[in-house]
Amino acid sequence: MSLLVVGSVAFDDVRTPFGEVRGVLGGSATYFGIAASYFADVNLVAVVGDDFTDESLDLFRTHRVNIDGLERRSGKTFRWSGEYGFDLKEATTHATHLNVFETFEPKLPASYRACPYVFLANIDPVLQRQVLEQMEAPELVACDTMNFWIEGKPKELKETLRHVDILTINDSEARELASQPNIYEAAQAILAMGPSALIVKRGEYGALMFNEEKVFAIPAYPLEAVFDPTGAGDSFAGGFMGYLANVRNVTDATLRQAIIMGSVMASFNVEAFSLDRLRAVTYDEILERFKAFRRLVHFEDIGSGELAVQRLMI
Amino acid sequence: MSLLVVGSVAFDDVRTPFGEVRGVLGGSATYFGIAASYFADVNLVAVVGDDFTDESLDLFRTHRVNIDGLERRSGKTFRWSGEYGFDLKEATTHATHLNVFETFEPKLPASYRACPYVFLANIDPVLQRQVLEQMEAPELVACDTMNFWIEGKPKELKETLRHVDILTINDSEARELASQPNIYEAAQAILAMGPSALIVKRGEYGALMFNEEKVFAIPAYPLEAVFDPTGAGDSFAGGFMGYLANVRNVTDATLRQAIIMGSVMASFNVEAFSLDRLRAVTYDEILERFKAFRRLVHFEDIGSGELAVQRLMI
Repeated sequence: MSLLVVGSVAFDDVRTPFGEVRGVLGGSATYFGIAASYFADVNLVAVVGDDFTDESLDLFRTHRVNIDGLERRSGKTFRWSGEYGFDLKEATTHATHLNVFETFEPKLPASYRACPYVFLANIDPVLQRQVLEQMEAPELVACDTMNFWIEGKPKELKETLRHVDILTINDSEARELASQPNIYEAAQAILAMGPSALIVKRGEYGALMFNEEKVFAIPAYPLEAVFDPTGAGDSFAGGFMGYLANVRNVTDATLRQAIIMGSVMASFNVEAFSLDRLRAVTYDEILERFKAFRRLVHFEDIGSGELAVQRLMI
Repeated sequence: MSLLVVGSVAFDDVRTPFGEVRGVLGGSATYFGIAASYFADVNLVAVVGDDFTDESLDLFRTHRVNIDGLERRSGKTFRWSGEYGFDLKEATTHATHLNVFETFEPKLPASYRACPYVFLANIDPVLQRQVLEQMEAPELVACDTMNFWIEGKPKELKETLRHVDILTINDSEARELASQPNIYEAAQAILAMGPSALIVKRGEYGALMFNEEKVFAIPAYPLEAVFDPTGAGDSFAGGFMGYLANVRNVTDATLRQAIIMGSVMASFNVEAFSLDRLRAVTYDEILERFKAFRRLVHFEDIGSGELAVQRLMI
């Protein structure tokens, strides 16, 4: 079952308390695509410069990611430089060189247009809508965005959201998009904008899903060593959408499993720089961590009448 | 089954974005005691001034909290004034008047000394140890503390922890106590100090438990309206210890259920100022919210071979 992703392919310079790498492969479409590739056929749309190496293409090839939609242009590939402090929460961006990404206009190869599942990574909401306009009749559209677009292009973003089934954003973005400090009320406001499900990414605190007046909440997988959080949100989205494309059945039950699978892929991703861990994970490891998630949150029900005494007469 | 709590009984002035109250009943032992009273016989040790009203005593009486250990002294009752901002996370303290609490020396009535379960709320670790020295042979000792003692009396606190089975503290306190930014590594360091279980309270993000090389993680119950977070940690501890005292069986399974019960009681507590909601909750409501917690985190396992394709040959 095939899945389309539109986003960035980039070279990153990343420093964390545990080390530093320069010019490593990154970008939202890269993290998403490799994570999703374990579960589904991925069609990637992005742009790179003429500095993009064959070695990097190899990663997509070994993971059977279709890169017919990876445009190569003269100029340099998008480059991001950032640093994480000791708590590994928010990155401080040192430099963002958009380069060829600055004038990116997603063009879908004809073979991509019938793709049933779509993920619009965090790019200009106008471009996100242009992607949808090139598609035939996608069954499921998920989308990411960020405060830059919420503040800079609110009307365009809201127009895009009318065509989106699932929005995946973080806690503060959800509050900002809805102008509501309470996340529960923010979720209801966002669901009224178009999406039928909202997934709130909370980093080390896990994720929330709001859909059909239901709420699903899950902690993040506790890791002894988080090495580099770069790409966590996109590998989450890749595992999530990849799983849904695999089972091709979008219900409350499969959405919940998909959120766990997204959390599993994100938990692997942050164990190493760039895609070093994500590209090398095995199916046994993926399924074992899914089961570990079940143990992590498991508790027994209380049988009726099991509490020894009902003490109060008030 | 009986449970002893030592802590504060106070009058609070609280302002939140939703309103303001002055001189309402509060204090760690109060929140703990009322929450625990739904599940177990509670023996309370604290001190109040001669301004303490009969109306406030009525709350303890209707909840059958034993106040033989509530010392009355000439002077004023402990008074705390604080304010919560729009995110309702951390309180800004405007004033702390310890009053009679400043020279509090917990004295246990003879009838309390054989009590099997003990909760030492957040007070000077030297006083916490004095309580334990007055007891015969408690089966289970749980304890809270805060950054003030972690920074101000680290040696005394570590001595107390040698006699404690379960420590309940928040995220940043755990990192500070262990001098470890990673919460997983912090937990291992704290378990090496004495406790056999560590419960990390994460406010709106729920709770973590580390014990026997296991981890349990649970989100907080999502509430449409959080009104006043004061007492959330102590009502959590009250529900937690009350439940354990009720089932009188401390295993990984009952500890997990107890954490849910603590979360249930905390979720009720924050729905209103002071103890207005906590004092009026019914058993049906408690058990219904416990079940709602199960629905909140529920997801199905993936059957073996259920994933359609194992795609990679790498």
